[in-house]
This record gives sequence, C-alpha cells and structure tokens, in this order.
Amino acid sequence: MPANPDYEQVIRESFSRQAHMSTLGARITRLEPGRVDLTAPFDPRFTQQNGFWHAGAVASLADSANGYAAFSLAPPDTDVLAVEFKINLLAPAEGEAFRAEGRVLRAGRTLTACLAEVFAIRDNASHPIATMLSTIITRPVRK
Amino acid sequence: MPANPDYEQVIRESFSRQAHMSTLGARITRLEPGRVDLTAPFDPRFTQQNGFWHAGAVASLADSANGYAAFSLAPPDTDVLAVEFKINLLAPAEGEAFRAEGRVLRAGRTLTACLAEVFAIRDNASHPIATMLSTIITRPVRK
Amino acid sequence: MPANPDYEQVIRESFSRQAHMSTLGARITRLEPGRVDLTAPFDPRFTQQNGFWHAGAVASLADSANGYAAFSLAPPDTDVLAVEFKINLLAPAEGEAFRAEGRVLRAGRTLTACLAEVFAIRDNASHPIATMLSTIITRPVRK
Amino acid sequence: MPANPDYEQVIRESFSRQAHMSTLGARITRLEPGRVDLTAPFDPRFTQQNGFWHAGAVASLADSANGYAAFSLAPPDTDVLAVEFKINLLAPAEGEAFRAEGRVLRAGRTLTACLAEVFAIRDNASHPIATMLSTIITRPVRK
Repeated sequence: MPANPDYEQVIRESFSRQAHMSTLGARITRLEPGRVDLTAPFDPRFTQQNGFWHAGAVASLADSANGYAAFSLAPPDTDVLAVEFKINLLAPAEGEAFRAEGRVLRAGRTLTACLAEVFAIRDNASHPIATMLSTIITRPVRK
Repeated sequence: MPANPDYEQVIRESFSRQAHMSTLGARITRLEPGRVDLTAPFDPRFTQQNGFWHAGAVASLADSANGYAAFSLAPPDTDVLAVEFKINLLAPAEGEAFRAEGRVLRAGRTLTACLAEVFAIRDNASHPIATMLSTIITRPVRK
Repeated sequence: MPANPDYEQVIRESFSRQAHMSTLGARITRLEPGRVDLTAPFDPRFTQQNGFWHAGAVASLADSANGYAAFSLAPPDTDVLAVEFKINLLAPAEGEAFRAEGRVLRAGRTLTACLAEVFAIRDNASHPIATMLSTIITRPVRK
Repeated sequence: MPANPDYEQVIRESFSRQAHMSTLGARITRLEPGRVDLTAPFDPRFTQQNGFWHAGAVASLADSANGYAAFSLAPPDTDVLAVEFKINLLAPAEGEAFRAEGRVLRAGRTLTACLAEVFAIRDNASHPIATMLSTIITRPVRK
C-alpha cells in the first residue's frame, strides 16, 4: 500500500523536473506502488565507442526507475535520494529502445533497497542487458 | 609500464568515439599509465529533481574514467568493456564542473579492477562527491 | 541445459572441499542447472555484536550459492571463482537457519552474473534478509 | 575528531561481542578516528575449494574493519550496522595472515561510506587481495 495517496502525482511532478530524464527522452511506462518502469529510445548522442548505449546512460535509466519505485512507497512531504548503486552489464546495450523496471525489495523508514532489470527492445522482443541493486534514502522535504 | 606504447593515441581515438562523453562535454584532463581523469562542466540538461547532476551523469563520467584507466594498461589490439560497477554518492553533485579520477587497482590479463573518485569543483576547490569501484574486461579487437 | 553432464557430482565434490562451508554447517538443499540453494543452521560462533549472524557469514553463504549456481552451467574441466559481489542487508540475520538461493542471471563463456536471495527461517516461515549480485569467472582447470 | 571521547573503549567492547571475529581469530591491530585495521591468521577452517581463504571470510574481516572505522566517528549512545557492501577480489587469499584496513570516506549523521583494503601477509610483505566499498548506518542505541 502506498503511504502517500498522491504518490502518482508526486512522482510525475518530480520526474518532470529531472532534466536528465527528458534529455535521455525517457518516459514513465509503468507506475504502481513499489514498481516503476522507464523507457527511452535509442539515441546516438549517448553511445560508447562501439555504438552501443554507454553504461552510464543505462545506469541513469535504472537509477531513476529504482528511485521512483522507492518514492512510490514513501510518505507525503519526503524526497528520495540514491545513496549508492551497483550495476552488472549483462549484454551490450543495443536496441531501438531501453526499458528499466525498478522494483522495491524492502521499504524501510529511512532506507529502501531496490532491484532494477534493464531490457533492450529489439525486433519486438525484450533482451536483458543489465541488473542494478540500489540503496535509496527517504528524507523529509525542507520547505 | 603500459603494454601498448601507443596507449595515449588509442585512448584519445576511442574517447573521441564515445558520443556520450562529448554530449556531457567531458574532456581528458589527465592521461598516464593506470590513471585517467575526465572533467565535464556543469550542464543543466543532466540534472535530477533538485538541480544537482543526476547520479547517472556522475556515474557516466566515473565509468569512462575507470574504463580508460584500465585501457591505458591494456595490450595492443584489445578493447575494454565495463563488466559492472558500484558507486557511492557521498554528497550532492553541485558545482561548476566535475572531475572523475580513475585509477587501476589491479590489472589482470582478462579483468582489471579500478577505483574512481569524483569531485565537484566549487569556489576553486575540489569536493569529493562519489567513489566508484569497477570491473573491466579486456578483449581482443575483432578486425 | 548444463554444459557438463556431471555438474551435480562436480559441484558436490567441490562443495565438500570448501572447509568454510562445513565450518558454517552449510548443506546443499537444492541443486539444478542455474540454481543452487545452501542452508546453514544458526550458530552463535558467527554472530555480530547484537547476536545476529554477521554480515560476512551471510555473505559467505550467498557467495557460495552464487558460485555453485554459476558452476552448474560451466563446461567440464573448469573451475569458478568470485570476481566481486555486492550484498544489501535487508533485515537482521535472525533465525533458526539461513537459506541462500543462488540463481544465474546470465551465463557467459568467461563471466557469469548471479543473483542470490538470502532468507532467515523463523517460526516455519522464510524472511528475506539479504540480496547479493555477483560476478563469477569460469577458468580451465590446471591439471 | 571523534564525536565520542570514549570511542576506543566502545569499539573494543563491541568487537569483543562479535563472536564471528573471535572465531576467525581476528584482532584489532590499529584503532584511530576514521581508521581501523583488523588482522586474522590463516586458518584452514575458512578455506574454499582450492585452499585459499573463502571470499566470505575475507569479506567478514573487511566488513568489520569498515564498520568499526565508521563507529570510531559516531556519537555516544549509537550503534552501527552495515547497510550494504561490495567487494572486489583482486587476488587469491593466500598468506600466513590477512589484514583489513578500514577507512572512512565520508561520515554523515545517518550514513557513513567506508573503503577497506585487504592484504595477504606472505613472506613478510603485504599483498593487496581485495577492496571493499561499504555503506554503514548509525543508529541510537535502544537501552
């Protein structure tokens, strides 16, 4: 159960302020308590030396997906911040689009652990390309 | 000692092909065997909801610094790829510019471990904002 | 499909040589291609300052579960070694026994990524206490 | 500067209650504000299949070193707990003894980030075998 009945509105408002997400062309493609998916199209501006998406671009998408998954369970008048994350890159980030699925593993009062799976969308199929394990802190908003 | 006498040229050439780095405005500001620094100016296109640089942008810079630190010790006709990384975000990424210092901890034939420290440059001082521990794989280039 | 038809025998033989596992009292409680569970009873010799199992004991169990999950898909005449792992401790390790479930996320020729979930068994129920993300290398055995 | 003038006594008392450390034969070999070293002799009860120390035993030592490094800067009437850690295994844990050097990277009111380097002592020299990056939470003690 979400601790904030307005979680959806609060997340969409915060997401709209993440300039990095709009620069990447990312959109929210799923939003439920404890689960947030973000999807971004392939964009050659974010590639590494071989033409695949850079690990940092993949990590950006997964980090925001995990952050908003945590935020979906946070109480009103709080904000979330990534404390740390770890990502395993399972396959080259090659595809027409990328989808990061963020899920809460455990929501605590102060700290929330999340796991994100990232998929490359190629030929109408989803191929796993990365897994991220994150720690997120919930803090009161200073008004 | 670098295993490739042309390591500098090979790194500069690879870096020039990382579109994500030029999108971030990153430049190589130090290049030695086992050590590569990358510096990027603050750019509001890569911020999170509070106006700081997004953790994914910080991670992008650190990941490339570590990758090129590893590459500086790799033999000719190889390429490097990040297998995984973990980043601790020590402080908000707030500054006029950001510098990631990548260092090789141990260079192996197949795998290299690197540690990057990321600093925010504010008021002519460097403030630590993140630490990244990475595993990088060296592979023969397919020509 | 296992690449080694004798994977079960090879894993049981290797496990019997892991003195650390027998010191912890760990047993193999599930063994399938890509999936290995290890279970150990609570033992006060491995506690931290508050009487819970030490994070390092929990990590030991999860590391071996992931290692053997990777090994179950490795070809004959190879051995596996942990390159690195990251563990999130979700709750105190408090219970009558602990079970680490290791699963392969992606098996590569050289590197395999695994995810382990660790549960405390209390009052006939399994409570998640940790999640580990590991990178494992497969190498030819030197005979 | 330590926030608790009795930090040394508090750490030694907590360490004496970590049964896992005494089972490993670990001793505190350095104790300063923000820095704690732990040293343990090689013991064949904690080996993996090739006779080296198990990664989980190495991680146990590093986790406690980082935890006590964090604890050395914590205020009175608090306790510390590992939230998560990540360890890179740089070389086989082969030696007569192992020393984990835990250092605080950044001490916060709630969260502290630490980095530990682990060395194998062989032939009177210290060989790096692992690096651990940890997040530790400081909490008021419930009396």
